[in-house]
Amino acid sequence: MEPEQLVSCIDFRYISDVLTKEEAIEMLKKNAATKKEREDYLVKNGYPAYTTSTAWLGYSDDQLRQRCKTALKEGWTRFKMKVGSDLKDDIRRAALLREEIGYDNILMMDANQKWDVQETIDWMKQLAKFKPLWIEEPTSPDDVLGHATISKAMQPLGIGVATGEQCQNRVMFKQFLQAGALQYCQIDSCRVGSVNENVAILLMANKFGVPVCPHAGGVLLCELVHHMSMFDYIAVSATTENRVIEYVEHLREHFKCPVKMQNCHYLPPQYPGYSTQLTEESLRDYEYPKGKVWQDLIQQGKFKPV
Amino acid sequence: MEPEQLVSCIDFRYISDVLTKEEAIEMLKKNAATKKEREDYLVKNGYPAYTTSTAWLGYSDDQLRQRCKTALKEGWTRFKMKVGSDLKDDIRRAALLREEIGYDNILMMDANQKWDVQETIDWMKQLAKFKPLWIEEPTSPDDVLGHATISKAMQPLGIGVATGEQCQNRVMFKQFLQAGALQYCQIDSCRVGSVNENVAILLMANKFGVPVCPHAGGVLLCELVHHMSMFDYIAVSATTENRVIEYVEHLREHFKCPVKMQNCHYLPPQYPGYSTQLTEESLRDYEYPKGKVWQDLIQQGKFKPV
Repeated sequence: MEPEQLVSCIDFRYISDVLTKEEAIEMLKKNAATKKEREDYLVKNGYPAYTTSTAWLGYSDDQLRQRCKTALKEGWTRFKMKVGSDLKDDIRRAALLREEIGYDNILMMDANQKWDVQETIDWMKQLAKFKPLWIEEPTSPDDVLGHATISKAMQPLGIGVATGEQCQNRVMFKQFLQAGALQYCQIDSCRVGSVNENVAILLMANKFGVPVCPHAGGVLLCELVHHMSMFDYIAVSATTENRVIEYVEHLREHFKCPVKMQNCHYLPPQYPGYSTQLTEESLRDYEYPKGKVWQDLIQQGKFKPV
Repeated sequence: MEPEQLVSCIDFRYISDVLTKEEAIEMLKKNAATKKEREDYLVKNGYPAYTTSTAWLGYSDDQLRQRCKTALKEGWTRFKMKVGSDLKDDIRRAALLREEIGYDNILMMDANQKWDVQETIDWMKQLAKFKPLWIEEPTSPDDVLGHATISKAMQPLGIGVATGEQCQNRVMFKQFLQAGALQYCQIDSCRVGSVNENVAILLMANKFGVPVCPHAGGVLLCELVHHMSMFDYIAVSATTENRVIEYVEHLREHFKCPVKMQNCHYLPPQYPGYSTQLTEESLRDYEYPKGKVWQDLIQQGKFKPV
């Protein structure tokens, strides 16, 4: 689409104090001439990714070590761990992870809304020595001003704040950007009102110089969101610096067009559309209650249809 | 309930940076000794109210005048008008209203989320000469920082910002209060998670010295919310200064315990509970599809059951 066409898909209502239609067109025109170069680069090298599969809270220490070793062998250089249940446990697990991945690789931490504002600051001061790139979802996803306070406290520690997967619309993202409340903008492909709303958010993030690092915890989110990040690189920010897409394999066997990875990078899709389709087999086998999966469960007495 | 009991109903998660359990108990204890005085005052005088029924957008100028005259005769001293569709029209209607009610009575304006931030400021500068007490819901109800910008611009004009009827939880209200983004806090009895969440909001508003003026556009909202304002007066703020409950008669004929008004003031309820019940007749007549109302519509060919 031409910049004017593309911008006509955006609802500027309630965001005109931060981004006007004219600015958006200007932004898209700025990098238009060099789009082909970046497209070629993506086809060859793919878009950087990080893995969340090494360090869920439920894993034993042995599992953590084993998963790190496997991920390192696969070529991963960016790792996310879950934190927030128990401080001592977090310290032990972070130390273990750093032992395995070293300090040349990148570590992120994700608290999934566990803390209050001051609690975040106190807790992260204890985890700062493990040099996390970011702390993700430290508190209520609605708390713009809380995230701004946390961001300010994290700055001297060299830790960014990441959030967005539960952020409901462009008006909330606008405020997170205005308040300096996030340093990594985690759009999600399913949370806000479709592609159009995410395009508005990408453009606002670019205006504020905030990198977009989408949320993509498997379940088709990776597939949907990789279109977004590649659009950001090709048409909006024109850089992958500090930008990375989450990667989790969860349920990819059911997708007609699962993302293709190469050296832990997302390759661009080679087919039209938004990669949303499920395979015919999965649709057939999981159809309730006649599909094979349900029938097996019923016959084994593991499920009783209502 | 004793302060400790009452406070145990509040979820302090995500608001502890603004209000702690201890502060809340302290706040409730402060006015506990004089509760009976205020209860007696309410039984005698009621709680102040304003009317929204005089100036909806659809009314002709004649209707506006007629409704003002009637309301004045009934003793109303506070009037709300809808604005935001057409500036010239708003100016004409505001002039007309002030002609009818004079400048000793109070006028509020309600834009129902019509504008962007700068648009609000520009528009309200044109309406400031009609001395509205507040501008309600000028822009997106999610836009805390936008409301803060508007509040700052309205201050020299003597106009407050009112919002809250679409505010989803205590975390959002917390931020509106922290940012100085509202001067009148419009809790709603049905929007947030029940009575408990509203108690948290009342206490935070009291801490910031912001008056609570509930949203109550008929349809049982008046009934539910008058409990809240009376609790605020008796147990929390201990004042009705700058405080007022919206009043609209809409659908009150269906309620088992409709609010009782006296000289345009809400009288306290004289029965236990939260005033939520509908009358047996209404439940019977409106039951779909067998109730009398539906059957009449069907027989008259005005409705076709699916």
